[in-house]
Amino acid sequence: MEFSLDARTEDLRADLLDFVATCVEPAEAEFDSQLAARPDRWAWDTVAALVDLRTQARKRGLWNLFLPGDDGAGLTNLQYAPLAEITGHSRLAPAAVNCSAPDTGNMEVLRDFGTPEQKRAWLEPLLAGEIRSAFAMTEPDVASSDATNIATRITRDGDEYVVNGRKWWITGAMNPNAQIFIVMGKTDPSADRHRQQSMILVPRDTPGVEIRRGLEVYGYDDHDHGGHAELAFHDVRVPAANLVGEQGSGFAIAQARLGPGRIHHCMRSIGVAEKAIALMCERVEGRVAFGRPLSEQGVIRDWIAQARVRVEQLRLLVLKTAWLMDTVGNKGAHTEIQAIKIATPATVQWILDKAIQAHGAGGLSPDFPLARQYAGIRTLRFADGPDEVHKNALARAELRRQAKAREARHG
Amino acid sequence: MEFSLDARTEDLRADLLDFVATCVEPAEAEFDSQLAARPDRWAWDTVAALVDLRTQARKRGLWNLFLPGDDGAGLTNLQYAPLAEITGHSRLAPAAVNCSAPDTGNMEVLRDFGTPEQKRAWLEPLLAGEIRSAFAMTEPDVASSDATNIATRITRDGDEYVVNGRKWWITGAMNPNAQIFIVMGKTDPSADRHRQQSMILVPRDTPGVEIRRGLEVYGYDDHDHGGHAELAFHDVRVPAANLVGEQGSGFAIAQARLGPGRIHHCMRSIGVAEKAIALMCERVEGRVAFGRPLSEQGVIRDWIAQARVRVEQLRLLVLKTAWLMDTVGNKGAHTEIQAIKIATPATVQWILDKAIQAHGAGGLSPDFPLARQYAGIRTLRFADGPDEVHKNALARAELRRQAKAREARHG
Amino acid sequence: MEFSLDARTEDLRADLLDFVATCVEPAEAEFDSQLAARPDRWAWDTVAALVDLRTQARKRGLWNLFLPGDDGAGLTNLQYAPLAEITGHSRLAPAAVNCSAPDTGNMEVLRDFGTPEQKRAWLEPLLAGEIRSAFAMTEPDVASSDATNIATRITRDGDEYVVNGRKWWITGAMNPNAQIFIVMGKTDPSADRHRQQSMILVPRDTPGVEIRRGLEVYGYDDHDHGGHAELAFHDVRVPAANLVGEQGSGFAIAQARLGPGRIHHCMRSIGVAEKAIALMCERVEGRVAFGRPLSEQGVIRDWIAQARVRVEQLRLLVLKTAWLMDTVGNKGAHTEIQAIKIATPATVQWILDKAIQAHGAGGLSPDFPLARQYAGIRTLRFADGPDEVHKNALARAELRRQAKAREARHG
Amino acid sequence: MEFSLDARTEDLRADLLDFVATCVEPAEAEFDSQLAARPDRWAWDTVAALVDLRTQARKRGLWNLFLPGDDGAGLTNLQYAPLAEITGHSRLAPAAVNCSAPDTGNMEVLRDFGTPEQKRAWLEPLLAGEIRSAFAMTEPDVASSDATNIATRITRDGDEYVVNGRKWWITGAMNPNAQIFIVMGKTDPSADRHRQQSMILVPRDTPGVEIRRGLEVYGYDDHDHGGHAELAFHDVRVPAANLVGEQGSGFAIAQARLGPGRIHHCMRSIGVAEKAIALMCERVEGRVAFGRPLSEQGVIRDWIAQARVRVEQLRLLVLKTAWLMDTVGNKGAHTEIQAIKIATPATVQWILDKAIQAHGAGGLSPDFPLARQYAGIRTLRFADGPDEVHKNALARAELRRQAKAREARHG
Repeated sequence: MEFSLDARTEDLRADLLDFVATCVEPAEAEFDSQLAARPDRWAWDTVAALVDLRTQARKRGLWNLFLPGDDGAGLTNLQYAPLAEITGHSRLAPAAVNCSAPDTGNMEVLRDFGTPEQKRAWLEPLLAGEIRSAFAMTEPDVASSDATNIATRITRDGDEYVVNGRKWWITGAMNPNAQIFIVMGKTDPSADRHRQQSMILVPRDTPGVEIRRGLEVYGYDDHDHGGHAELAFHDVRVPAANLVGEQGSGFAIAQARLGPGRIHHCMRSIGVAEKAIALMCERVEGRVAFGRPLSEQGVIRDWIAQARVRVEQLRLLVLKTAWLMDTVGNKGAHTEIQAIKIATPATVQWILDKAIQAHGAGGLSPDFPLARQYAGIRTLRFADGPDEVHKNALARAELRRQAKAREARHG
Repeated sequence: MEFSLDARTEDLRADLLDFVATCVEPAEAEFDSQLAARPDRWAWDTVAALVDLRTQARKRGLWNLFLPGDDGAGLTNLQYAPLAEITGHSRLAPAAVNCSAPDTGNMEVLRDFGTPEQKRAWLEPLLAGEIRSAFAMTEPDVASSDATNIATRITRDGDEYVVNGRKWWITGAMNPNAQIFIVMGKTDPSADRHRQQSMILVPRDTPGVEIRRGLEVYGYDDHDHGGHAELAFHDVRVPAANLVGEQGSGFAIAQARLGPGRIHHCMRSIGVAEKAIALMCERVEGRVAFGRPLSEQGVIRDWIAQARVRVEQLRLLVLKTAWLMDTVGNKGAHTEIQAIKIATPATVQWILDKAIQAHGAGGLSPDFPLARQYAGIRTLRFADGPDEVHKNALARAELRRQAKAREARHG
Repeated sequence: MEFSLDARTEDLRADLLDFVATCVEPAEAEFDSQLAARPDRWAWDTVAALVDLRTQARKRGLWNLFLPGDDGAGLTNLQYAPLAEITGHSRLAPAAVNCSAPDTGNMEVLRDFGTPEQKRAWLEPLLAGEIRSAFAMTEPDVASSDATNIATRITRDGDEYVVNGRKWWITGAMNPNAQIFIVMGKTDPSADRHRQQSMILVPRDTPGVEIRRGLEVYGYDDHDHGGHAELAFHDVRVPAANLVGEQGSGFAIAQARLGPGRIHHCMRSIGVAEKAIALMCERVEGRVAFGRPLSEQGVIRDWIAQARVRVEQLRLLVLKTAWLMDTVGNKGAHTEIQAIKIATPATVQWILDKAIQAHGAGGLSPDFPLARQYAGIRTLRFADGPDEVHKNALARAELRRQAKAREARHG
Repeated sequence: MEFSLDARTEDLRADLLDFVATCVEPAEAEFDSQLAARPDRWAWDTVAALVDLRTQARKRGLWNLFLPGDDGAGLTNLQYAPLAEITGHSRLAPAAVNCSAPDTGNMEVLRDFGTPEQKRAWLEPLLAGEIRSAFAMTEPDVASSDATNIATRITRDGDEYVVNGRKWWITGAMNPNAQIFIVMGKTDPSADRHRQQSMILVPRDTPGVEIRRGLEVYGYDDHDHGGHAELAFHDVRVPAANLVGEQGSGFAIAQARLGPGRIHHCMRSIGVAEKAIALMCERVEGRVAFGRPLSEQGVIRDWIAQARVRVEQLRLLVLKTAWLMDTVGNKGAHTEIQAIKIATPATVQWILDKAIQAHGAGGLSPDFPLARQYAGIRTLRFADGPDEVHKNALARAELRRQAKAREARHG
C-alpha cells in the first residue's frame, strides 16, 4: 500500500493547477459577459473566452485527460482522478480541457461501441472539441432508476428506426451545438428485463425532435453549459445504422458508461468541496462579530474540522475505487462505485451548506459560487438513480457477502 | 391548558383555507403569465390577478389579519398564527390578504412609532394595499447580526438628515411601487452601543437613492415579490421629520419589529412544510419502483413519519410563543421567539429536502414549488442574524437561568 | 388555546418539586447503601429509606398521582403529565410516590379489566404500595412488536389454564416482592390476528415459574428497581378465574395499557432531560480549558441551545397528547401517542449524550446519573416495539389522511 | 498509489484471522467462567484460558506485533494496522497477542525513553507478557486535555522524588499484576507551559499508593482487562532514577506516546465496527416482522449501506495515516492522526447504535457484545482529550494552511 501519486500524475497536477488558477478562473467573468451578449443564451461552447482556453489547454497537453487509450491522454482512472478533482475548482475548467459531462461519457460510448462510421461522424469532432452531445435517458413520467420503466420506443421500420417518447433533464441539449443525442429507448419490450433497451444516435436536426424547454435546477437554468432540456421525439426516423452496439444492448452500454461517469463526477465534486473549504476559511478570517473573528468561534471551527475530516476520507475512497477499476475492472469495483455515488453528494452538500452559512446571505447570492454549486451537487443525489436505490443495492450485496462469509466459517 | 382554537379563529381558518385553496392557488399560473407579459418584471403587486385576489380578500374580511388593534383585523398573535400558517400554502397568499413581509413589519413600525403625518403619508396606503415598502437594515460589508457593525450614516444637517451607505438583501425594493424605505443607520456613533442607531423614512424617488441590482437566492430573483435589492444611498437628503421615533431609538425599534416578524415567518414556514408533506404523500403513491409504490418503501415512510413528528412539535412551540407574546409581551417571550427562530428553518428545510428527494429530479424543477421554497426557507437561517448568534444568546440565557435556580436551591 | 397549568396542577407541582428536591434526591445515597447491605440485591422496594419516602409521600397527598378516578389521585392525563415529569429528576421519585412502571400500567389493567376478586387480591396491595408486579409480554425468540409472533401458550385445561413459554426483559420481576405477573400468551392461535392473545395472572410462587436471570442493559442490572428478568413458564397452572378480561382480549388490553404507559414514560423522560441540562449547565461553568470556561465555548453553547429548543417542543407535544387523551380518548390520540413514542427517546438520548460529553469521562461514571439514564432511555427505542415499527405505522396513517384530504378537495 | 497489502502483511492477516476466529473467540466463554471463579475479579491476565492463548500466539509468531524494531515483530505502522483491526473482533484478542493498551504505549515509552535499568526491570517482563502496567495521566478535578491543568506534583527530595496527587480512569490499574505505573505530574510548575511535566515510574506496591476504586463505564467495570482505577498518591517516594527521560520532558513523551496509541485504537475500533456489521447482517436475516425478514426492510438496508460506506472511508484514512507515520513521521502525520481520532469513535458509535437497534432489546444485553463495545467506543470521544479539543486544533491548522495557500497564490 502506497499513498503517493506517480510522477506523471504529479506533473499533470502541477500543470493543471496552474492552468486553472491562472487562466481558467480569471476567465470566468469574461466568459459570462461574452455569453450574456449573445442572442442565444444557450450557445455557450463557442464563446471566445472558452475557445481560447481550449486552445491553450490543447497546447499544454491538458486535453481529453479523461480518456484512456490512444484517443485520449492515455491515463488510468487513478491517474485521472486527481486531475478531475482540480477541474472542480472552476465551472469552466471541465470544458476548457474537454473533460465535461455528458460529452465524456458519450465519447466513451462511441469509442467502445461505435461503428467506424459513427466514430468518424461524431467521435472525432467531439474529441476535437468542435461539437457537443447529449445523453437522453431520463423520462418525466416514470421512476427512471428502474430501467424497465423506460417508456420511449425505438421501433424498427425497414432500414430505419422510429423514435417516440419524452425525455427530460437532458443536460447540454439546449445548446444548438449539441449536434448529436444518444437516445435510450425500448426496442424489444417483451425481451428479458435487461435486453429490452437499445441506444440510438439521433442528430439534433432530425425532423420530429422537439426541444421543449430548459429546466431549471433551483433557479439556475445552467445555460452556461447547455442547460437541462425537456425533449420530445415524434416519429423521429434515423437510419438503422445509427444504432449503438447491437439491438437489446442498451442497458449494458448504459451500465458500462456509468462507472467512469460516476468517478469523474465524484472527483470533480471533491474539487468543489475543496474550493468551498478554501472560501469558507478565507471568509471567516475577515469577518468580526461580537468582538472576535468568526475564525476563532468554536462552531465555525467545528465546521472546518468536520469538512476536512470528511473530505479526506471521501477522497481516499474515490481514489481506491479508481484503482480498483484499473486493476479488477468496473465490475469488480461495483460496490465501491456505488459507495462513492452515495457518499459524495451527501458529504459535499454538507460542506457547501456550512460554507454558505459562514458567508451569511452572500453565500446564497451570485457573488460566490457556493449556492450554485450546491444546486449542482444536489442533483447528484438523483442522477443515475436516487441514493435510496443505490443504498438498497449495496446493502443487498453486503448481506450476500456476509452470508457467504458465515457459510465459509461454519463450513 | 387547552389546545383547541377559539371560535373566531376556527371561522377565519375555514374561510381562509377555502379562499387559498379555491381562489389563490388556482390564480398562481395566471399571475405568472400576466407578470411575464409586463415590461418591468419587478412590478409584481399591481398585476391584475393579484389585484383581483386582494379585492376578494377585503370583501371576505380576510385583510390585514396580522395587525392587532383597530387598524387591522384586531387578532391576537395566537389567533393570527394559524392563519399565517395557511398563507404558507401558496406564494401569492400573503400578498392576497395584505399580510406579506416586509410590509407587515413596516406597518407595525409606522403604527407604533410613526407621527400622524408619517401615518397619513405611508401607513394608510400600505394598509389599503396601494403601495409597498422596504426595510433597509442589512449591509454587505459587515456581520449585520451585530447591530454595532452598521456602517450607514444618518447625519443631521439643519432641517434635514443626510443618509450615506450601502445595503443589500432589501426584500421588495426592486418593485417600483415599493415607495417608501425604512432605513437603519447610525446617527450617534459615540453613543451607547444600542443608542447609536436611528431609523428614517426615505421615499424611493429621493435623489441619491440608487437601486443597484436584484440579488438572486440560489438562482431565484424572486421578482414576483419584489426581489432582494442592493441599494446605495449617496448624500440622500430627507426632512428631519422623517425620523421614526426619536434619534437613537433605531435599535429598540428594530427589536420591537422582530418579535412579530419572526412569528409570522415561522407560522408561514410551517404552512410551507405542510404543503411539502402533502405533495410528498401524493407523489409517492403514484410512483412505482422495483415492483412497489414508493409509499410502501421503508425509507420513504421514515421521512413521512419524521416530517409529521417534527412539524407537530414545532407548531406547538410557535403557538405557545404567540400566546406568551399576547400574555406576557414580546420581552417575556424572548427566549421562545429565539427558539422558534432557530428551530423553524432547520425543521422545514429538512422536510423540503426529503420532499424534493421523493420527487426525483422534478423536485428541483419549476414544476413543483419545493426547490423554490427550499431557497426561501434557507435564507431564514440568516435573516435577522444567523442561527449561530441566536443559539449563542439562548444558551447564555439558559446558563443564567440555571445558575439562578441553583442559587435558589442552595440558598 | 391556553398554555398555563390549572391551579391544582400548579399546587401539586410545587409540592412535588419540593418533595423530590428536599426529600427524595437526598435519600438516594442512603437507599443505595441500605440496599447494598441486603442479602438479596433485588429486594429493593422494602428498603427502609424508600419505605420512609413512601410514608411521607402518602401523608403529603403525593400518592398514586397517575391513576384517574377514585382509586387514585383523580387527575386527568394533562394534570398528571407535569408531575410525571418531575419524577424524572430522581430515580427514586417514581416509586416514592407509587407511580413507577410497570406497576402503574398493571394497576390500570386490574382496575379496568379485573374482577372484584382480582382487585381485592392484587390491586389493593399495589395501590397501597405493599407489593410489586410485573408485565410479561416480550419474548426472546421473536420480533415481539408484532403481537402475532407471541409464542407463549395459555391453554385451557378444565378449571385451569396452563402456561408454557419464555419471556425476557420483564422489568421488576427479579424483586421477590413482585408477587404477581400479568402474562400475555396465545389462547386461540387460530382466531383472528388480534383475538388470539389473552392475559392471565400468575402469582410469582406458582410451581413452574422459573426466574432465570437478570438481564443487564449496558452493564446495569437495575437491581434497584427490580431488574429485567428472563422467565420461563413450565406447565404453570393457575385457576381459570385468573384470566384478565375475557379470552381473546389480550391484544386489546395490551393496547389499552399502552397509551397511558407511553405518556408516563415520555413525561418522565422529559424530566430526565431537564435534569441533564441542569447538570450540563452546572458542569460547564466550573470547568476551564485553554483559558476560558467551557460555558463560553461556542460548541458547548450550541448544545445547550439545541437541548433547550428540542425539549420545549417535545414537552408541548406530550402535553397536547395528554389533553387529547382526556378529551377524545386514547384512540383519538393514537397518532400523537405514536409521535411522542418516536420523538422522546431520540431527543432525550441526544441531550444525555451531550451532557455526558460536557462532563468528560466523569459523565460515563457512576459519579453522575447521566450514563445510567442514557441506558434507560436507550431501551425506550425498543420498548413496546422499536421506533421503526411506529414510524412505519404513523406514516401509513399520514398517507391515508392525505389521500382523504385530496379526495375531499377534488370531490 | 497502490491499495493492496504487501505479502508479509497478507500472511500475518491470514494467520491472525484464523487464530482469532478459531482460538480466541471460542475461548471467551471459558475465560469468563475461569475469571468469575477467582477470588479477585480484577486478576484477569493470569487466567488459564488467556495464558494458554498467549502461549499459542507466541508459537505462531503473533506476538508484540505492534512494536517496530527488534524488540517486537518489526512491522511498520502500515503493516500493523490491518492486524490491529483484526484484534477488534474479540475482546480477548489484543491481550492474546500482547498488543493491548495501555501496555503497548507503555512499552513504547520504556523502549524509547527508558534507561537500561528501567528496561531490564519493566520492559522485558512486559514484552514477555509476564506483568502489566498502567499509565496515570488523567485527573478528576481538571480538564486534563489541557496538560497545563495537571495538578499532581512530583517533587525532588534528595535522591528521591515524592509524588502527590489524584488520578482516575487509569485503565488496567485494578489488576494486581499491573506492577508498574507511569505517572505524569508537574516537577517544574514555573517552567514553560510544556516543560513543567515529567513522567516517573511508580511500582504498584510503593507505600502511599492508594487504589481507591474501580470506575464503571456505563455499568461495566471492565474487570476483565483490569478496570479503570481511581488512584491517590500520598507522599509516594521513588528513587530519582525512576524518572523517565529527563525532568521536564513529560509533555513531549506523552505526545510521542499518543500517535501510535491513537492509530492502534482506531484500527481496533474498525474491527469492532466490522464485527457489528457482521452481527447486524446475521441478525436481520433471521428475524421476521410484519411478513418480511428485517433484511428486506428499507430502513435496515439503509443502515447496512451507510455502515459499509462509512467504514470503508474511515479505514482508508487510518491506513493513510499509518503510511504517513512511516514515511514522514508522527509530526508530519499530525493532522491525519487528529482526523482519525475525531472520525473513528463517531463512525463506530453510529454503527454500533444501529446494530443494537437491529437486535432489539437483546442488543443491549450481555448476550451480544454490542452494548459493551458501545460503552468502550464511547470513551474514545474523551480519551486523550475530547473531540472538541481536537476539532478546534485541526481547524486552526486548516485555517493556517489555507492562509498560506492564499499568500502563495497572491504572492
